[in-house]
Amino acid sequence: LSQNSDIVIIGCGAGGGTAAQFARKTDRKSSITVFEKGKYPQYSKCGLPYTISGTIPKMNDLIEFSEEWFKNANINLSLGTTVEKINVDNRIVFAKKGNVVIEKSFGSLIICSGAKPSYPPIRNLEQDGRLVNGVHVVRTIDDAETISSHIKRGGNTTIVGAGLIGLEMADSLHRKGMNVTVVEALPQILLNTLDEDMSKIVHAAVSEKVVILTNHLASKIETKNGKISQVFIKNAETGEEQSINTNLLILATGTKPEISLAKNTGCKIGKTGGIIVDEKSETSVKNIYAAGDCTEYLDFVTKKPIPIGLGSIAVRQAIAAGINAAGGDYKLPEGVLQTRTSEFFGLEIAAVGPATDLLEGMSVVSGKFNGSSLPDYFPGGKPISLKVTVDEKTGRILSAQAVGDNAAQRINTFACAVLGGIVVETFRKLETAYAPPIAPTLDVVTLVCDIVSKKLNRKR
Amino acid sequence: LSQNSDIVIIGCGAGGGTAAQFARKTDRKSSITVFEKGKYPQYSKCGLPYTISGTIPKMNDLIEFSEEWFKNANINLSLGTTVEKINVDNRIVFAKKGNVVIEKSFGSLIICSGAKPSYPPIRNLEQDGRLVNGVHVVRTIDDAETISSHIKRGGNTTIVGAGLIGLEMADSLHRKGMNVTVVEALPQILLNTLDEDMSKIVHAAVSEKVVILTNHLASKIETKNGKISQVFIKNAETGEEQSINTNLLILATGTKPEISLAKNTGCKIGKTGGIIVDEKSETSVKNIYAAGDCTEYLDFVTKKPIPIGLGSIAVRQAIAAGINAAGGDYKLPEGVLQTRTSEFFGLEIAAVGPATDLLEGMSVVSGKFNGSSLPDYFPGGKPISLKVTVDEKTGRILSAQAVGDNAAQRINTFACAVLGGIVVETFRKLETAYAPPIAPTLDVVTLVCDIVSKKLNRKR
Repeated sequence: LSQNSDIVIIGCGAGGGTAAQFARKTDRKSSITVFEKGKYPQYSKCGLPYTISGTIPKMNDLIEFSEEWFKNANINLSLGTTVEKINVDNRIVFAKKGNVVIEKSFGSLIICSGAKPSYPPIRNLEQDGRLVNGVHVVRTIDDAETISSHIKRGGNTTIVGAGLIGLEMADSLHRKGMNVTVVEALPQILLNTLDEDMSKIVHAAVSEKVVILTNHLASKIETKNGKISQVFIKNAETGEEQSINTNLLILATGTKPEISLAKNTGCKIGKTGGIIVDEKSETSVKNIYAAGDCTEYLDFVTKKPIPIGLGSIAVRQAIAAGINAAGGDYKLPEGVLQTRTSEFFGLEIAAVGPATDLLEGMSVVSGKFNGSSLPDYFPGGKPISLKVTVDEKTGRILSAQAVGDNAAQRINTFACAVLGGIVVETFRKLETAYAPPIAPTLDVVTLVCDIVSKKLNRKR
Repeated sequence: LSQNSDIVIIGCGAGGGTAAQFARKTDRKSSITVFEKGKYPQYSKCGLPYTISGTIPKMNDLIEFSEEWFKNANINLSLGTTVEKINVDNRIVFAKKGNVVIEKSFGSLIICSGAKPSYPPIRNLEQDGRLVNGVHVVRTIDDAETISSHIKRGGNTTIVGAGLIGLEMADSLHRKGMNVTVVEALPQILLNTLDEDMSKIVHAAVSEKVVILTNHLASKIETKNGKISQVFIKNAETGEEQSINTNLLILATGTKPEISLAKNTGCKIGKTGGIIVDEKSETSVKNIYAAGDCTEYLDFVTKKPIPIGLGSIAVRQAIAAGINAAGGDYKLPEGVLQTRTSEFFGLEIAAVGPATDLLEGMSVVSGKFNGSSLPDYFPGGKPISLKVTVDEKTGRILSAQAVGDNAAQRINTFACAVLGGIVVETFRKLETAYAPPIAPTLDVVTLVCDIVSKKLNRKR
């Protein structure tokens, strides 16, 4: 049995698809089988809001690797196939495609079962065990297609949740001519993505285009002819309730790891509800790997477990899982940086490292700087706001958050600093690239560090 | 005399002006005097090509800090004032403004005398000790004004030197409707900025807009009515000569450190012809500092001395000089990264670390990758080519070169890696920011490192 080099992968999202590719790159001969319950091969879930807005012309454009691609790579991809059971002792996966039961033995297993949407407690949300007509999550191509069919110029849409997906959808539906209201139960938008002070810059900009109600809960929906017509919104502080006409309700309130299969394999489940994986993306069960939204891993800075919710991390875990499952040797860093970015209403945001609130128990110093992407004398400079947080004792850069021009690439430089354990006193002297049409002599990435460094020196 | 805290600064370019500011920030009370031989206070020399193209509307826009600004900062700025002699023993500077001789004693001196253009051996270049009418360098606002007065749509301009300034000028004059020919004596454009293979990408793109003649020397000019009319171009390989009608000849063939004053102070001059400075920007003479184009400093990677020729480095040295001259304590890293960037004909280029040819005696491994700024499925992705070179023994990243989208900010991430001594095996696992409209799940900055890493492993 230990001679069995067959690899079975559950799920063909970004995680499963990538794992299959890297397993194949590592081992040209072994049998590789991917079971995917949906009808599409690997496609970009993150791209869904942009197909809804029309920026990406066709839904099918999202497919990154076609069935043919998998075939040519000699990977057995079985779509419309649900894995029902994993027998760990005998190393067999039982799956079902229509009425056909498939038994597949494996040497290594990679679980990329993803996550399922987590619904907020809204009354009348479901009817006959399904979301009411006009109420949607944004998880699949089918979701995006149905949402698109509900869009009408001048119509009203309510989005529950002001995280990245909520705001991306707000932009998309606004572009399609809908009146958008975003309802957020918490006092700030983009919790865990940005600190409150940084989120306020985004809040102000987004509020110019759509209505944002923070501290508000969607409490109840009403239907008319079997379709959503109203959503009731409750002020979390005053308890006041109002109703909004709504043709389309988008739920963007996060996800829960999909671990129903993994649970029965003996793979340890962590505090956050995800499958625990190590630097090799291996679970607590030898030769069973997992990657993506169904897992939890350590945060690089706090070394505490966090649920994985970013496609960029899923892909990196899947590279490790695929290589290691195929007999290679690939280790990820001891924790994830959670480098993240998005863009809506023309504003780019990005961040790396935990939100400052999550650095409990650490003594930290933060500094902020609002600057321009270009020298003052050069026309067309765009605003950029940066916040950097460092460890008070060592000066090590722990996190950075940016709103504005080239936020993502600027944050990548900080990601390198976090990963490399670089201290702020070194980073502030970084020689950044300068040319009048491109960046000022001293880029905002170092100017913000001057401020942090001064605060740090005053404390010492 | 040692009690004298007066600071005298020679030159009010980016170096001198910045040094004055940081001296003032460090010491609110001391007397600070800046002698500048030109008629303008601190302005951006790097911005000159963009005033010529009209992108920056007015020449005066280039002035970053006005006379009034210096006055308000309680800095004595004396324009039109030439320093004639430095008496190191008695710590006195002798300057001349018109016929008035100024004697100014100092406790600390900062030399920011810049560089002077270095002319190629072209016959008839000068008449009566001055460049022929229609022949120009691009060093000062006056140069830019005169060049602008010679521009005519449909006219012919020849640029000698295909370095950064030569190509920036080619773009500017092309925008103004001139027919541009760039003549470069060497076999490649952008020597020392990019390796030959990377420069070829730029060469191909620029050649679509203007004529580039590499391996060609400008040998002679002819005049008509006291103005340039022809330039003779010689093929360095075949010796063949041709003449080009030229209304305007731009010399962009580099500079030499201006050290005539420093020479007599006892400050040590290095092999490259610049004033030797240390991490504090102090010269070999105590309390005499120097910054910018008149200096040489170590390259961070090779630890060999190199002449300083970038405004970004001048400003950083000046920060150190200003703070230290005023009694503070500020040290630069042990060498410069030479992070550099520019943009012409819509193409952004950037690099950090020495050109690979300059890594003599080191065993290095390089890798290249051509990718896109966005995921394949997202419209509008732009090409980006990257080259990364690492030390074969340690895997440390030594240099990176980029041509294409967001080259500069991507190179800043590598600059952080070079400064932090990060190895390619770590960097390739960097979690970069991903979102469909912004960057792919795996950015080119890590994909190129995968290639380098594989090459490295094959060699080991």
